Amino acid sequence: MADVIDSGTLLRERYGVDADDESLCLDESGTIRGLLAHRSVRAFDGRPVDPAIVDTLVTAAQSASTSSNLQSWSVVVVRDKTHKSAVAMLAGDQEFIREAPLFLVFVADWARGAAISRSRGEAAEGIGYFDSTLVATIDAAIAAQNAIVAAEALGLGAVFVGAVRNRPDELSALLGLPDASYPVVGVAVGWPHTARPARVKPRLPQSVVRHDERYASASASDLARYDEALRRFNESQGRTGSWLDAVVARVRSRSALHGRERLRGILSSRGLPSA
Amino acid sequence: MADVIDSGTLLRERYGVDADDESLCLDESGTIRGLLAHRSVRAFDGRPVDPAIVDTLVTAAQSASTSSNLQSWSVVVVRDKTHKSAVAMLAGDQEFIREAPLFLVFVADWARGAAISRSRGEAAEGIGYFDSTLVATIDAAIAAQNAIVAAEALGLGAVFVGAVRNRPDELSALLGLPDASYPVVGVAVGWPHTARPARVKPRLPQSVVRHDERYASASASDLARYDEALRRFNESQGRTGSWLDAVVARVRSRSALHGRERLRGILSSRGLPSA
Repeated sequence: MADVIDSGTLLRERYGVDADDESLCLDESGTIRGLLAHRSVRAFDGRPVDPAIVDTLVTAAQSASTSSNLQSWSVVVVRDKTHKSAVAMLAGDQEFIREAPLFLVFVADWARGAAISRSRGEAAEGIGYFDSTLVATIDAAIAAQNAIVAAEALGLGAVFVGAVRNRPDELSALLGLPDASYPVVGVAVGWPHTARPARVKPRLPQSVVRHDERYASASASDLARYDEALRRFNESQGRTGSWLDAVVARVRSRSALHGRERLRGILSSRGLPSA
Repeated sequence: MADVIDSGTLLRERYGVDADDESLCLDESGTIRGLLAHRSVRAFDGRPVDPAIVDTLVTAAQSASTSSNLQSWSVVVVRDKTHKSAVAMLAGDQEFIREAPLFLVFVADWARGAAISRSRGEAAEGIGYFDSTLVATIDAAIAAQNAIVAAEALGLGAVFVGAVRNRPDELSALLGLPDASYPVVGVAVGWPHTARPARVKPRLPQSVVRHDERYASASASDLARYDEALRRFNESQGRTGSWLDAVVARVRSRSALHGRERLRGILSSRGLPSA
């Protein structure tokens, strides 16, 4: 477990500036300290992850809320080295997926519901709507988040991998995912490499993402302040780059989507037309 | 905080049966105990939630991962009684939203990115794709999950409210949400009513949602076993109903969508065509 650090430090790391405006209530158990100290870990040492830990992460994932208790999600646990390497290739060819001893693919899964309906001779028309895809996607995402919180509580490091949606048709074939399901996010898990530690990445000021009672547009000065804080953080990591530039680059055109512009068509062909 | 309970009890409550097959690793801090003990709380006593707690929940939410650090989500903090009642009316007219002192609406938010692009005279074509809607939706969902974990660590109770998507056009107008944003989930938060305690709801056996290396269809006997476990749980709560029946009812036709069958059209009209 991390050393105990005080609220001021937690907030300073989280926002990249002295956050005098925000108060912080910490629980005795250390859960909130753990949440605030989250960092995405992409460098792992060689140690394996115990099977009992995998059980625990899945149990934690299942403990998250699920819409109407429908549990319209699944998780594929990938540990086999050769298999994981093939999965990595289809998920942005990222080396840290090969390096991680454990890769969890969280799946939006209406296939189970469809099979239950079929076994009773019932239709499954409801699955075809956009909200059904969202329900299963949200279920899968919050389950993944719980798995990450549990992993970090055990001293493991983890990182979300959205690139499982880059080539979802091929990845689905590789993982044997049935119709009416698709990979939402991956989570790479392992023991953090002590020689290549990850740092907490500063977030937007709370005033930007939080709106009291009604939405209010962000002030240009708040955004500029954050851009500067993140630039300082990046420089401390030997990187360059502006957050505002990155947002514009992502938003400008479909070229930043790395194949994901095909996602809706692929989901349609997989029995999730999202009408 | 909850009393310390042993692994066997945690697993028995989580799965509704003796879960002899699963092992559990517990961290010293109690974070995993907290995750496993999650239950959806819909009955609150009258006590208000301190402003410092609201700050903390938002900070915890912001500490969750976010795709490429884009932070394409927002949260609207609703505390005003009259306003909250109007929000409740549009979110399934659920009384516990009125009863909760705090209602958080997590928003998929590309409006901020669009405004940044616009301020530079750039296009925002990338926002129109399905994956962009998913990225913002997943960001919002995992932020909400972190807020719930933090709330529960502080002894608060909380529940997800998917019904914020029932009438997203009207709710967006009420909350002043701009184009290229939509309400993903609500979270009602308050101090649990001790006279109406919530119980941990059993989940599917781990063998059903978990797939090692490749997807495998659920066995009918595993599903029947769960149906029976949930029936026993429901009976203990003075309720009836079968899980399998509920799945079929949700999947069968669009009539179970409570207006959400219109969601894709509404998002399109709000600048999120999800092409």
